[in-house]
Amino acid sequence: MYKKLTEIIVSEIEGIAGKENVLREKEKLIDYSHDEFALPEVFNFPEIVVKVINTQQVAEIVKLATCEKIPVVARGGGTGLCGGCIPAYGGIVISTEKMNKICKIDQNNLMAHLEAGVTLKEFYQALKTKTLFFPPHPGEESATIGGLVSTNAGGARAVKYGTIRNFVRGLTAVCSDGKIIQAGGKIIKDSTGYNLVQLFTGSEGTLGIITEAILSIMPEPEAYLTLIVPFNNTKDTLNCVPSILKSSVRPLAIEFISKQIISIAEDYCGKHWPSMPGEVFLMVILEGKNSEVERDCETMAQICMENKAVDVFVAQAEEKQQDILHVRSIVYQALKSSTIEILDVTVPTTEMAYHIDFVEQLSKTYNLWLPTYGHTGDGNLHTHITKKTPDGKEIKNWKEIYPKIRQSIIADGIKRGGKISGEHGIGLVKKQYLDMCFDADYIEMLKKIKRAFDPFFILNPGKIFDPE
Amino acid sequence: MYKKLTEIIVSEIEGIAGKENVLREKEKLIDYSHDEFALPEVFNFPEIVVKVINTQQVAEIVKLATCEKIPVVARGGGTGLCGGCIPAYGGIVISTEKMNKICKIDQNNLMAHLEAGVTLKEFYQALKTKTLFFPPHPGEESATIGGLVSTNAGGARAVKYGTIRNFVRGLTAVCSDGKIIQAGGKIIKDSTGYNLVQLFTGSEGTLGIITEAILSIMPEPEAYLTLIVPFNNTKDTLNCVPSILKSSVRPLAIEFISKQIISIAEDYCGKHWPSMPGEVFLMVILEGKNSEVERDCETMAQICMENKAVDVFVAQAEEKQQDILHVRSIVYQALKSSTIEILDVTVPTTEMAYHIDFVEQLSKTYNLWLPTYGHTGDGNLHTHITKKTPDGKEIKNWKEIYPKIRQSIIADGIKRGGKISGEHGIGLVKKQYLDMCFDADYIEMLKKIKRAFDPFFILNPGKIFDPE
Repeated sequence: MYKKLTEIIVSEIEGIAGKENVLREKEKLIDYSHDEFALPEVFNFPEIVVKVINTQQVAEIVKLATCEKIPVVARGGGTGLCGGCIPAYGGIVISTEKMNKICKIDQNNLMAHLEAGVTLKEFYQALKTKTLFFPPHPGEESATIGGLVSTNAGGARAVKYGTIRNFVRGLTAVCSDGKIIQAGGKIIKDSTGYNLVQLFTGSEGTLGIITEAILSIMPEPEAYLTLIVPFNNTKDTLNCVPSILKSSVRPLAIEFISKQIISIAEDYCGKHWPSMPGEVFLMVILEGKNSEVERDCETMAQICMENKAVDVFVAQAEEKQQDILHVRSIVYQALKSSTIEILDVTVPTTEMAYHIDFVEQLSKTYNLWLPTYGHTGDGNLHTHITKKTPDGKEIKNWKEIYPKIRQSIIADGIKRGGKISGEHGIGLVKKQYLDMCFDADYIEMLKKIKRAFDPFFILNPGKIFDPE
Repeated sequence: MYKKLTEIIVSEIEGIAGKENVLREKEKLIDYSHDEFALPEVFNFPEIVVKVINTQQVAEIVKLATCEKIPVVARGGGTGLCGGCIPAYGGIVISTEKMNKICKIDQNNLMAHLEAGVTLKEFYQALKTKTLFFPPHPGEESATIGGLVSTNAGGARAVKYGTIRNFVRGLTAVCSDGKIIQAGGKIIKDSTGYNLVQLFTGSEGTLGIITEAILSIMPEPEAYLTLIVPFNNTKDTLNCVPSILKSSVRPLAIEFISKQIISIAEDYCGKHWPSMPGEVFLMVILEGKNSEVERDCETMAQICMENKAVDVFVAQAEEKQQDILHVRSIVYQALKSSTIEILDVTVPTTEMAYHIDFVEQLSKTYNLWLPTYGHTGDGNLHTHITKKTPDGKEIKNWKEIYPKIRQSIIADGIKRGGKISGEHGIGLVKKQYLDMCFDADYIEMLKKIKRAFDPFFILNPGKIFDPE
């Protein structure tokens, strides 16, 4: 159904992007054949990689690819966790690594105009020098703007201000016919026709290739405080969360994680969390004005102590807070060698405790280690399906039980009014479960959108659903 | 292209919804022939109105209508300002007035599940009894949830938390083939396939008929304060806004309005703003914890006084604050008899002052009263194109100059990086300007979405663009 690249087409692409920006040798293609999905066998090679430098080049390449029926997959930092940027059908990978210009940090409009290849780290740094702030923190700071927008990334710091979606104001994208669209702009309110900015956000590169974005930014808060609150068990920890959410204080982040997982992450990265009693932690980040944050911290501590917290530790020094966030953010990498897959089921917040009970029961039934932690402020949980027993022994038959486990966990999340993915996307690896979440009519509606934008399934084929 | 209703079809609809819920007499159809667009000549009669009581009835009627090629227009409170719910091609109006059930106020998940016909007023009241809060306030409280979501309504209180879009978590909608879809749910994060919740929000009833919605709600803030800050002129007023936005305080609302307009609104409704010096006002609403709000108020007053404010008035009593919001919200009604059309151009915040300059210049050139006010915290401005001179004389030839004026104002907004509509939608009356905002490729992309969802242009035809 798809065609292969010919020498003539490659020459044309070299003509568009410059020969030096086109990779063809197998060993150079390895880095572009996978993302951060834990199983190394989930990969596929592109035929070529093109390091584009502007939107126009992307447009010319996509137009050519659609003419020639060759798949095109956009790739940013490659930090995805569901195979979203793997060139499942080969073809062309368009890498945005050279499109890393911070076009403008507009302090007066509080908007940042960025090329798709800017990393989150570069973005944070640029903002810091101007005492500005971008709330979302989807963990891995080598992720790029294009990927973050394409997956509607979330992360820990989404409780107060929401996921990336709430910040995307404008997009430049290349459509499957090579046409360039500019949607939205430096505007906050917009009810002018269907909102393509919102439709493209979270569409995983399947409707168009995002090459630039305009994101809302905020003044840097005067102060941050990070609270680590230990509890004796998961139940007590989760029972505390509704009281926090219903209080007058709205934290930037509310995470929950066990001492066991934190220890592994500490060992992995050499940084330390505060030493603590208890078995399970809440990590609460507060931000705001100096006076306010201290008062909020007192309120928060009181709520936690009234809800069976064992203690409350407050990190005030910036470095200490950074270390805590770093340890939390490195958890995936620390567990990766034992992991088959990390899930990101999203459920109503009141269902989290029941869902985690279910996972714990499953762990006992199968004698399988299923470490679970995550964004308890917004119902988005990460379960690692591992290759180990709870006491650390390798499991031989993991290939047999893995599909049952993931199906069971996803089914339980959906049964509780949840969805398959809260922030990672469906990508390559979760599309088989889409029909557990949506009925055939709903999926057909999604496919109608796909066909309207990309009738030949050229853009990132095999993601969300199979090509037709 | 469209067909007329026959007696047989009407009988079928009566069978679905009950004869008592189907209106056919012309005098009963009058109320459903227009919205709140100022010119009375902008209207069209439906053939029948059906007062549905549930989603299933909507589904059966839409399915029948699509089969028979009869237009269907959903109608909520009829408070729109761009003809969005006018049955431009006749056919069936589906009124949601009887679908006004508050299905659940879920305090633990902080979500409200509402039928489409619930009014904003009913929603606010239900929340108040449980000390809960829904930030957006799009002015007219008889607007219904279905309409608010369909237009992505905004209003004054969108600076801190955004427009309705940021609050919509789940939707039940009926598609043009009569199928019922349920998108999203009581979940905060969602990256599971294309986001139909976001696509339907702001689609003006042209992709499906929204029958139920799940909206995020929040704990009621401990305190509110409303500041009225007078300035000597528009320039000083608008120059103050960036300093507010860049400060550590994030107000719920930042409105600007002239003393002249406020006087008219006071006379109209019999309620009063604080008596003040100055010619132009900022209205700033603060909310939060008791301690915080008072401190924020001091910060705000200081910023304003440093930026040429003449004085600062603080309303603390709830009743006084309600009166202020009421006077501000009644402005449209107060000006309506002089108005041809209210615009809602949205521009980058830094462009507001230039855009208003342009409008003032236009007012002088044409000797036409163009009162302008609006949501200065988010760049969304309301200019009334009136039938009067600035000193109150009736203008005879307004029909000649009106199209030029609106075209000029919209063009200026777009030139400044803005869009036609920040919150009202395109509806019937602004579609002719869509091609000033978007090129042909972009509009074709919007139409592809329309065709994918409603290939026969049955749902609210003639809105956003013409049927094909």
